[in-house]
Amino acid sequence: MINTDICIIGAGPVGLFAVFEAGLLKMRCHLIDALPQVGGQLSEIYPQKPIYDIPGYPEVKAQELVDNLMDQIKPFNPTFTLGERVDHLAKQDDGSFIVTTSDKTKVHAQVIVIAGGLGCFEPRKPVLENLEHFEGKGVTYMVKNPETFRNKKVVLAGGGDSALDWAIYLSDVAERVTLVHRNETFRGAPDSAAKVFDMANNGKIDLILSANLKGIGGNGVLNSVMLESKSKEEIKIDADYLIPLFGLSPKLGPIADWGLSIDKNAIEVDTTDYSTGVERIYAIGDINTYPGKLKLILCGFHEAAIMMHSAFKYVYPDQKLSFKYTTVNGVNAF
Amino acid sequence: MINTDICIIGAGPVGLFAVFEAGLLKMRCHLIDALPQVGGQLSEIYPQKPIYDIPGYPEVKAQELVDNLMDQIKPFNPTFTLGERVDHLAKQDDGSFIVTTSDKTKVHAQVIVIAGGLGCFEPRKPVLENLEHFEGKGVTYMVKNPETFRNKKVVLAGGGDSALDWAIYLSDVAERVTLVHRNETFRGAPDSAAKVFDMANNGKIDLILSANLKGIGGNGVLNSVMLESKSKEEIKIDADYLIPLFGLSPKLGPIADWGLSIDKNAIEVDTTDYSTGVERIYAIGDINTYPGKLKLILCGFHEAAIMMHSAFKYVYPDQKLSFKYTTVNGVNAF
Ligand SMILES: Cc1cc2nc3c(=O)[nH]c(=O)nc-3n(C[C@H](O)[C@H](O)[C@H](O)COP(=O)(O)OP(=O)(O)OC[C@H]3O[C@@H](n4cnc5c(N)ncnc54)[C@H](O)[C@@H]3O)c2cc1C
Ligand SMILES: Cc1cc2nc3c(=O)[nH]c(=O)nc-3n(C[C@H](O)[C@H](O)[C@H](O)COP(=O)(O)OP(=O)(O)OC[C@H]3O[C@@H](n4cnc5c(N)ncnc54)[C@H](O)[C@@H]3O)c2cc1C
Repeated sequence: MINTDICIIGAGPVGLFAVFEAGLLKMRCHLIDALPQVGGQLSEIYPQKPIYDIPGYPEVKAQELVDNLMDQIKPFNPTFTLGERVDHLAKQDDGSFIVTTSDKTKVHAQVIVIAGGLGCFEPRKPVLENLEHFEGKGVTYMVKNPETFRNKKVVLAGGGDSALDWAIYLSDVAERVTLVHRNETFRGAPDSAAKVFDMANNGKIDLILSANLKGIGGNGVLNSVMLESKSKEEIKIDADYLIPLFGLSPKLGPIADWGLSIDKNAIEVDTTDYSTGVERIYAIGDINTYPGKLKLILCGFHEAAIMMHSAFKYVYPDQKLSFKYTTVNGVNAF
Repeated sequence: MINTDICIIGAGPVGLFAVFEAGLLKMRCHLIDALPQVGGQLSEIYPQKPIYDIPGYPEVKAQELVDNLMDQIKPFNPTFTLGERVDHLAKQDDGSFIVTTSDKTKVHAQVIVIAGGLGCFEPRKPVLENLEHFEGKGVTYMVKNPETFRNKKVVLAGGGDSALDWAIYLSDVAERVTLVHRNETFRGAPDSAAKVFDMANNGKIDLILSANLKGIGGNGVLNSVMLESKSKEEIKIDADYLIPLFGLSPKLGPIADWGLSIDKNAIEVDTTDYSTGVERIYAIGDINTYPGKLKLILCGFHEAAIMMHSAFKYVYPDQKLSFKYTTVNGVNAF
């Protein structure tokens, strides 16, 4: 059993920054995330993209922001359980909670902070025979490290920004990029679509429109992808990798069963302290909702600060919270 | 008459970031500040001090944060009236406002955002004969640029953090630092006080305790400071500069007369959109109050984002606001 003051469910940007605000008040945190890495949507969906509305950063790459947040919370030594989903919350007689993950890890905490974003999201998968046998063996749903694809034959499928952006990016990395899309036009940014058409005309990538994924083949690892065009023609492509980019479908998942008040897949909170209505459980970041809510990173940061000041009374019931500026007080570890 | 969409009163960090959030929604801003420079408390009170709780910045000097905010809002070309206090607000028949400053500058705007911090603050001054004659000629109430004091004889007075911190800092810059304090112990951080006592013991600074400022002398510019000890002994010190650091006393000033609901020198707002109760007037940052309020820079950033989304309807009554991530949409100027 892991023991901590505050258990934070979700290690996205908001969960991470919450560690800092807790630390200033001498409260320790343990974070749990279903993903194998920290950073939430930023690291999982758009690590290489610039964000422009983080205050004080005219521009910052998503992963860079996550790295900076990790640096910022380092003095407070947060601990992590990654790659495990929180499935259960059990209230104890003294008011504290025990949290249990999909791998049966147990965490005991005085306060629970749900910073679960859009929930545990999963890629939308194509319906293909034997798909699961090739997952991790050539079939992948995200580009985590572009270098994986250096000098490989890559088939991308999809019509949104991810498919366009990665087709453009990987054309310089992979041996060959083929982009497959079921329509003639793209949903993604017109600029990117124009660029992709250009690259196809110049032979930099292969663009196959009005075609669907039909099958995959290989001996243990992927070596080919089968397509079917609208005219029912079959096309076979040699491939080391198939990356279907059909979007993510976030699932609130187990959080929906914890007795909290849920509206449109988000947890209703009181803006005085971002509490959920169940004592000692707070919700911050994309996962909460209230009148005027904006799903912005900078809003989650504010919610984390306010929420930790409210949680203090459960961790230190006998102490009076004294509010001090970091400039005056510094950042003192435990 | 200056015409704009949104008139922001106060160019502290929160007023500055509000320009960015307005800009994303294609609303132009004009800012007015009583101080001669932007940055509010950060630039005026502690430009050289590090802040640790700006999300994503493990450490950032106050002035550096202000500079970064100025960079961030540059694409939206905000305009400024500096060194003038806003004295009057007049509602027009069509719902818009005309703002008038102490220098009779007039600004016409659809929406008013009060980001006035602690109000117009003024340094607490010692009672000394001819004080005003030496202001700017040796007597100064703030350290804006430490280099001003290089190789000079400096007398600091006060017992708080500013006095301690600057005594420590300037001991490496000035020819000689004398710190005068009316008590035997300091109000500031014990660490800093211990360091100051140490430096005095080692002869790095002169520390004169239980003494009060009594007079100043000089021929046009300051050349001496007179002290009186508790035992009524008079002490004369050669000095190029006298820096009394007795704190700032912020004054809400004219804002108190604009018919807003005020509680303890702050404007009460509705957290749904940080509106004041008077239509088209919002209040964000240190100047507002609501249940759970924390006077933190990062909270003001959130308030600015939410508030601008609410103000959109007054600037573009016929348009529907469509919310887009900066990552997806970029930052497009006008
Ligand atoms: C393409 C794109 C561009 C964007 N651009 C911007 C932008 O420019 N500016 C901006 O402010 N915002 C932007 N956003 C939104 C921003 O990413 C979110 O607001 C932010 O990620 C929310 O942070 P969070 O920490 O609340 O949640 P998330 O980042 O979603 O992290 C939540 C974490 O909780 C985990 N989790 C959920 N349930 C469980 C469970 N039961 N057990 C264990 N772990 C769980 C998830 O795995 C996830 O890692 C963008 C989003 C996208 C997709
Ligand atoms: C020593 C010190 C250390 C601090 N450390 C931290 C920290 O570590 N972290 C943190 O988050 N916060 C810290 N703060 C607090 C932080 O500085 C404030 O929260 C922040 O400055 C608020 O920003 P603002 O834009 O709301 O107001 P301000 O910065 O106060 O700016 C308001 C501006 O409005 C102007 N104004 C007011 N009335 C009028 C008028 N009628 N006409 C024209 N102009 C007007 C003023 O001149 C001023 O420039 C610290 C403060 C101090 C003093």
